[in-house]
Amino acid sequence: MNSERIERMREAMAGQGLEALICRLPENVLFLSGYWPLCGWVFYLFPIEGRAVCVVPDTERDEALSELWDAECVTYKFGTVDAEDQYEEIERKVKRAVSGMPWKRIGYEGGFESIAPAYNAAELYVPAARTKALLISLFGEEKLVDATDLIHHERAVKTPFEVEKIRVSNEIANRGLSAFVQKVDVGMRAVDLAASVESSVLTEGTGYRKARRVRAFAQVAVGAETWRAWRPMEITSERRLKKYDLALLELAVVADGYWSDRTRTRVAGKASDQQKEIWDIVAQAQRKAIEAVRPGIEAGAVDRAARKLIHDVGYGKDFVHITGHGVGFSYHEKIPCICPGSSDALHSGMVHTVEPGIYVEGFGGIRIEDDVVVLDEGCGILAPFPRDIA
Amino acid sequence: MNSERIERMREAMAGQGLEALICRLPENVLFLSGYWPLCGWVFYLFPIEGRAVCVVPDTERDEALSELWDAECVTYKFGTVDAEDQYEEIERKVKRAVSGMPWKRIGYEGGFESIAPAYNAAELYVPAARTKALLISLFGEEKLVDATDLIHHERAVKTPFEVEKIRVSNEIANRGLSAFVQKVDVGMRAVDLAASVESSVLTEGTGYRKARRVRAFAQVAVGAETWRAWRPMEITSERRLKKYDLALLELAVVADGYWSDRTRTRVAGKASDQQKEIWDIVAQAQRKAIEAVRPGIEAGAVDRAARKLIHDVGYGKDFVHITGHGVGFSYHEKIPCICPGSSDALHSGMVHTVEPGIYVEGFGGIRIEDDVVVLDEGCGILAPFPRDIA
Repeated sequence: MNSERIERMREAMAGQGLEALICRLPENVLFLSGYWPLCGWVFYLFPIEGRAVCVVPDTERDEALSELWDAECVTYKFGTVDAEDQYEEIERKVKRAVSGMPWKRIGYEGGFESIAPAYNAAELYVPAARTKALLISLFGEEKLVDATDLIHHERAVKTPFEVEKIRVSNEIANRGLSAFVQKVDVGMRAVDLAASVESSVLTEGTGYRKARRVRAFAQVAVGAETWRAWRPMEITSERRLKKYDLALLELAVVADGYWSDRTRTRVAGKASDQQKEIWDIVAQAQRKAIEAVRPGIEAGAVDRAARKLIHDVGYGKDFVHITGHGVGFSYHEKIPCICPGSSDALHSGMVHTVEPGIYVEGFGGIRIEDDVVVLDEGCGILAPFPRDIA
Repeated sequence: MNSERIERMREAMAGQGLEALICRLPENVLFLSGYWPLCGWVFYLFPIEGRAVCVVPDTERDEALSELWDAECVTYKFGTVDAEDQYEEIERKVKRAVSGMPWKRIGYEGGFESIAPAYNAAELYVPAARTKALLISLFGEEKLVDATDLIHHERAVKTPFEVEKIRVSNEIANRGLSAFVQKVDVGMRAVDLAASVESSVLTEGTGYRKARRVRAFAQVAVGAETWRAWRPMEITSERRLKKYDLALLELAVVADGYWSDRTRTRVAGKASDQQKEIWDIVAQAQRKAIEAVRPGIEAGAVDRAARKLIHDVGYGKDFVHITGHGVGFSYHEKIPCICPGSSDALHSGMVHTVEPGIYVEGFGGIRIEDDVVVLDEGCGILAPFPRDIA
């Protein structure tokens, strides 16, 4: 039970004059209720006073009951031939739950454009016109307030409960990093490496510290492809590792709704002097940035710590992306942004990546990425894993 | 190049008085442009006359250029420290593209609540308040028309080009079914089976008939769990197969944006008489339904063919779900719905699943699922794969 979260959210809602929140995105249902939906058909009604109500498909009732911290669980028929229109069912259930509530301002997820999937990553359900119409029918348009910024802001500082969940996700990710380190070798294809990493995470992560729903999303670039492996999404190809080729793994892992984001770069065989030199610079830049992380510092200063080191040895223009970003309820969170000029102040409990990289045409790309939690003094690396090029 | 698609969509738009469509969901960008976005930050402007414009992050430029059928490709900076706000960038690019166009009605994806992910299934970008605000700023609210129903309707009947793509997706899925059949054995855990299936699809599917971006989403239930394996999402557990246990695989595969949806049920060891009996009923029901599929028939009659057979042998109440649904641009498509009472008329070119199942408490669940395409006469199974219980 994550009662600190509930209290903090209610305080934040009071500050904005919101009497209730209604959430449908799986990442926000998890955030406020403890339940990570299997499909995205769960509606969570979270009032500033009184007990929350979780409206779930009856197909997910058992899982919801076993995970909800403290909410009334209301089900509706779903997925069977005798199920009625789910919007009408949901409307009836929510209407009953809110009848008599004198609410004037209800927050909803109006502006989430970047979302993490439910466990069913193959098919997402997101709020669009029909959900908006449902909310208007339930509450009236004049009472609805887009609570997107509020929710992003409250998600940024994790409670100890949440930090532990993100640590578990990182510990499971280490199984994937370990498979990668063992498999990088001449002749392996990028897809073989990705498959091996994802398979290790699934088979070794399921059941680890009670994690039930584990998934990995690996992107692997090899050889010349690593030059472009800073891109937000890389196609994992059939290219085979040749001797001295770099292999870069970008790995997202989700465990029961909590995300980690890690990267390792290795060489097939013995690393060349240039590879070692650039790898060392990236490793030092990461260390510098991590050393800078502490409560009260501006995120821009953490970025500067890594960027200055890379700039001073002549690779400034090759470090094209930001140094880090929040992580936890999604693979990439908006707050904090560890980037040039960012005035986001770091707070104890924030979790973010530290991931400097250098990408040189004709040479390739090297990035090292770990997730850190801001502590009362300094920071801690979540689930440290060896950093070596070969 | 899928010119039949372009022509048909333009006709449909003319029928509704739409002069342009603007799409952001990866599945609809693919549908109209040929390009399956890596991330969900692509906007596609499809006019009823003249050349389409595809606004893409510069990080995806090469992939877009290699796949777009016939569109001007306009890029904006994305993902680097010098990138500006992407909404402002997109607004500028689209504004330039539409300047001088005397359009009065522009269709947009207002109501898509169920969506298939981009290649980056770990993180989705979907249209919400900020995209709507962007569209209003570009076109004015009075000109925007929710084209959700139109797009779903047009997607339902596939062109020959699209049928071939879905066939490739099914052929790749067969690699996963094959791994499943080989691995089902006493002592295997459900997660081990799922990992093996996903790994086979990734390593054997990438490169198969030029497929570049392949992903599998496997759900495996074993033993008593199979009783509930009709649910829209099942948690793949650590449970180990015991002798005579059933194992049920639900498998979604996406290959370059085209989806297949398949199921096989097997026994660890020799099947019991009851398992064989129920398996045979399900297999016969599937055959009956497939035999009923032809242009002009109502989808409800196809459902009835399977349901009557199962009902007549006493398992009617145990076949809780529908017989099938459209598949192709997403894992589950709305049209046609092969369910009781459905008046959706089947048309040549529709692709849908046929997936009867029987689920008995204390016994378990058996389902067999394949994808079929409606032909000018009857139908064809896309990538047949052996159906055996053991």
